[in-house]
Amino acid sequence: MRKKIVIIGGVAAGPKTACRARRLMPDAEITMVDMDTLISYGGCGIPYYVSGDVSDEKELRNTSFHVTRDEHFFEIAKGVTVRTATRATRIDRRNKTVHLEEIKTGKADELPYDQLVLATGSRPNILPIPGNDLAGVYTVADLHKAMAIKADLAQGKVGRAVIIGGGAIGIEMAEAFGDLWGVETTILEFMPQLLPRLVDRTFASMVEKHLRDKGVQVCTSEAATRLEGDDTGRVCRVVTPKRTLEAEIVIMAVGVRPRGELAVEAGLMVSPQGGIVVNERMQTSDPNIYAAGDCVDIRHLITGKRMAAPMGSLANREGRVVADNLAGLPSTFKGWIGTFVLKAFDICVAATGISLETARGEGFKAEAVLTAQSDRAHFFPSQTVIPLQMVFDRESRRVLGVQGFGPAGNDGVLARIDTAAALIGRGATIEDFRDLEMAYAPPFATAIDALNATANAAENLAAGRLRTVSPEDFLAWMADFSSRPDWLALDIRHQGAVAGFVEKFGAQWLAIPYPEFRPRAGELPAAKTFIIICDAGTRSYEVQCILDSMGRDSLVLAGGLNCIRRIGVDWWPE
Amino acid sequence: MRKKIVIIGGVAAGPKTACRARRLMPDAEITMVDMDTLISYGGCGIPYYVSGDVSDEKELRNTSFHVTRDEHFFEIAKGVTVRTATRATRIDRRNKTVHLEEIKTGKADELPYDQLVLATGSRPNILPIPGNDLAGVYTVADLHKAMAIKADLAQGKVGRAVIIGGGAIGIEMAEAFGDLWGVETTILEFMPQLLPRLVDRTFASMVEKHLRDKGVQVCTSEAATRLEGDDTGRVCRVVTPKRTLEAEIVIMAVGVRPRGELAVEAGLMVSPQGGIVVNERMQTSDPNIYAAGDCVDIRHLITGKRMAAPMGSLANREGRVVADNLAGLPSTFKGWIGTFVLKAFDICVAATGISLETARGEGFKAEAVLTAQSDRAHFFPSQTVIPLQMVFDRESRRVLGVQGFGPAGNDGVLARIDTAAALIGRGATIEDFRDLEMAYAPPFATAIDALNATANAAENLAAGRLRTVSPEDFLAWMADFSSRPDWLALDIRHQGAVAGFVEKFGAQWLAIPYPEFRPRAGELPAAKTFIIICDAGTRSYEVQCILDSMGRDSLVLAGGLNCIRRIGVDWWPE
Repeated sequence: MRKKIVIIGGVAAGPKTACRARRLMPDAEITMVDMDTLISYGGCGIPYYVSGDVSDEKELRNTSFHVTRDEHFFEIAKGVTVRTATRATRIDRRNKTVHLEEIKTGKADELPYDQLVLATGSRPNILPIPGNDLAGVYTVADLHKAMAIKADLAQGKVGRAVIIGGGAIGIEMAEAFGDLWGVETTILEFMPQLLPRLVDRTFASMVEKHLRDKGVQVCTSEAATRLEGDDTGRVCRVVTPKRTLEAEIVIMAVGVRPRGELAVEAGLMVSPQGGIVVNERMQTSDPNIYAAGDCVDIRHLITGKRMAAPMGSLANREGRVVADNLAGLPSTFKGWIGTFVLKAFDICVAATGISLETARGEGFKAEAVLTAQSDRAHFFPSQTVIPLQMVFDRESRRVLGVQGFGPAGNDGVLARIDTAAALIGRGATIEDFRDLEMAYAPPFATAIDALNATANAAENLAAGRLRTVSPEDFLAWMADFSSRPDWLALDIRHQGAVAGFVEKFGAQWLAIPYPEFRPRAGELPAAKTFIIICDAGTRSYEVQCILDSMGRDSLVLAGGLNCIRRIGVDWWPE
Repeated sequence: MRKKIVIIGGVAAGPKTACRARRLMPDAEITMVDMDTLISYGGCGIPYYVSGDVSDEKELRNTSFHVTRDEHFFEIAKGVTVRTATRATRIDRRNKTVHLEEIKTGKADELPYDQLVLATGSRPNILPIPGNDLAGVYTVADLHKAMAIKADLAQGKVGRAVIIGGGAIGIEMAEAFGDLWGVETTILEFMPQLLPRLVDRTFASMVEKHLRDKGVQVCTSEAATRLEGDDTGRVCRVVTPKRTLEAEIVIMAVGVRPRGELAVEAGLMVSPQGGIVVNERMQTSDPNIYAAGDCVDIRHLITGKRMAAPMGSLANREGRVVADNLAGLPSTFKGWIGTFVLKAFDICVAATGISLETARGEGFKAEAVLTAQSDRAHFFPSQTVIPLQMVFDRESRRVLGVQGFGPAGNDGVLARIDTAAALIGRGATIEDFRDLEMAYAPPFATAIDALNATANAAENLAAGRLRTVSPEDFLAWMADFSSRPDWLALDIRHQGAVAGFVEKFGAQWLAIPYPEFRPRAGELPAAKTFIIICDAGTRSYEVQCILDSMGRDSLVLAGGLNCIRRIGVDWWPE
């Protein structure tokens, strides 16, 4: 008898499971069920559909060879039966049957299975505030919503937008609104920084400055408390404790939560957060039922914690593991480390592993180094600086995370973050990063790659040879010199760059150009902690070595003024 | 007493050692000696100086903050004494003294050392053919030669160039000549392909086609046998067994060999190939003498063989290890894996680890998969296909190498090759590549990254589910269908793409579009091996699964027609 496989959910993990299972088991009967009429689409592409980079929603549902992945395609090309607009209402584990309901007709049905796969995905969080059900208030949850948003834009209904949530999707939507449609956009983020938990403050600040430069208003530490509508019932206003924002459209991008109800009702193990519990083979507490995608809890390989990780790339990998196991091939999914990349207008930010804040919260003895190295040979015309931060555990020397920031137009930051991800996923130490053999030619990298250089800096920091002050602590001091009366800026950049600073900050700002520092080190005043300042931090480290040999106190401004400039400050001398 | 450190050689490993040693040992007396008057330059930048991308040779000697790294800079800024235009003539190990000679004056001198570092670099090979000493015949060995080449170009002396050697430097020089200067350029390569040993045939052919498209003549399996000069003693002609090429300039880019004479004369261990033998601490057979850079033999981490690896990036890493050990910090350099990247006009080619040919030569049970996946989401406007090849050992499943080809304008290929390098350097298997968590967002990658997809294909190949024909074997068959009378092309692309092929190749070319294949599989003729053809190979694999379930023989064209198109063929129907 042919093995019957039923898959509930048809967006990412579901179709991946179905297609791989079909290739591995030519004889199986494979049925995929989805509530929606549209299936197997690239949900991560929604912001690019809204922006117009992708002109037709069909492109998000097409294969790379321009065939639409609809029911017919799955039936004929893939040999997978698809039932759309059909809800799975109940799993009868004893009789190994899924109860279905056709949404349009209400007609009930049953589907027997030998093995069942839950790929039920996630649902977007909706803030419990007044007005959350007004017309013009959207989540970025599925293609129908995306089409509605784009229709609003195309019909000229939208001049001002408020995006609630400063995570990746919120920022991508801000770009979509601003870039093509010229919509005045505000991002409201409840936490004190954009991309909370994903990157540390420094990198969030760089993203925030760029968004501001592009005309997006960013309000952090600020929550929407109420949405107000006009006479027609359409949203027209967002109220926060600090202000009232006019808006014809509101996007709620405040995370998602797993759709685990079917699993709960069937008595499968589900975590308190709602994620279906699976083992490394993606098997639920019922050995005949597997689960994959946004609806499952998976293990974070650095923190060890289990949680939902709603990412299309993980869903695909998990779906493949499910298919292998359905076919009897032993295959496991060990967990995830949190690699991501985000385009925001002309820049990109990317990270892998955990941030310094997260690492400390998890109890690691974590430290971080911040560098500002060139992405390619400094003499190569298109070179630019890509700030990188490496977070590591001081005791084990294990690298816990790497963050990067740079232009969106090339993949230089991606190259470093993907490389870091490969090592972090295998528990690598600072030394492993130092010894990494990356490709070098002047058009692509520097002889000591930015990532190697960051590891070298981490090694120096771990050894106590390099001691730094973070951009945030430096900025706090710049805002109030009296907060650290023992500190004195020691600016070692060339005279032209320094002049305005000396003029503006007077006695607070000592200037000795780096090439002259060694012979002139005797000029330094007594009893101060020198905050050594250069563009990138590299020359500052060298000066710190000299000061150490003289028994003088110093701290290096991590990432140099290059990072400060990317964060943006109002005190920069002109 | 202050420790005396003497470093012989001042280009890459030498200055790196000197500067790091200075930071670690503020009190040491550090002296660096070099024959040349120009030191501490980015030799890898020479082609970009010749091309004009870098306008002044000084930029190759500058720091990233625009200060020239000359003797004065090292003395004042770095605290390192430099003696240029000075030859080290002999090492007196018993008295721990280096004998020196000032080149201009012939004046002899002695320099005592506690620890000595040999960073004597390499010298370029010169073919032993008549005319190799004519004016206008250059190697790409140092800045002086680079300036002479550029002067010849700038003075309009050069209309035609011949480059002997189709390795990385030869190709970079071809671009330099062609791109800015419009010089008619020919590359002669003795081996049957460009970039021999660095990449396999398929990737070399893609590079070759692009060079041809850019007007560079490429002659492989062809050696220069004689250079002829004009009345003034300047080269004017290159003779090969097949042709005579007019040329006003000839570049010999046929590799380098270590400068190990000083070491040999001092009785240090030197390999038969001339590389100085060092341990993992970069210590020679005399514990007080270290060596780093082009002059040493280092261990290849995949083949286990020791050889010289003349690369600026390795020289810097080695120099850092030497400095650590000089300062008493235990630090090791384990070896290298051969990561490289090369820009050639609008494309780049990159690789890490070893090629299939090398792997088989080394006795590995090596196989390779070739894919043609998109570098970013297929619906994202700037996406392009980046062919990747993964070489692995069938028994251990260890990945031995990865090669990539793509546009030079973004760093998408770099991202995949650096990531692969991180894993290969740690002995990773196919499964480690499959499980790799890379960053995903549509502007940067696909949900299943090209590198993951390549690992998935490798897994299918290793399991026997995927069976392929290489582009080379396919092309041989296309040149002579009668060579494999049992083969029949099964083209599963859409009708529009296929029409010209069916018309041209008639009964040899069966066409069933992929989406219709399942229901129409019964139409296939009997007793044939189907060569399944699509654009990338992915759909072909699916069709192979179907054919397997029917008990029919088939092979998938690895990399699909996308790779064939990049190799370039004369039979493509218009």
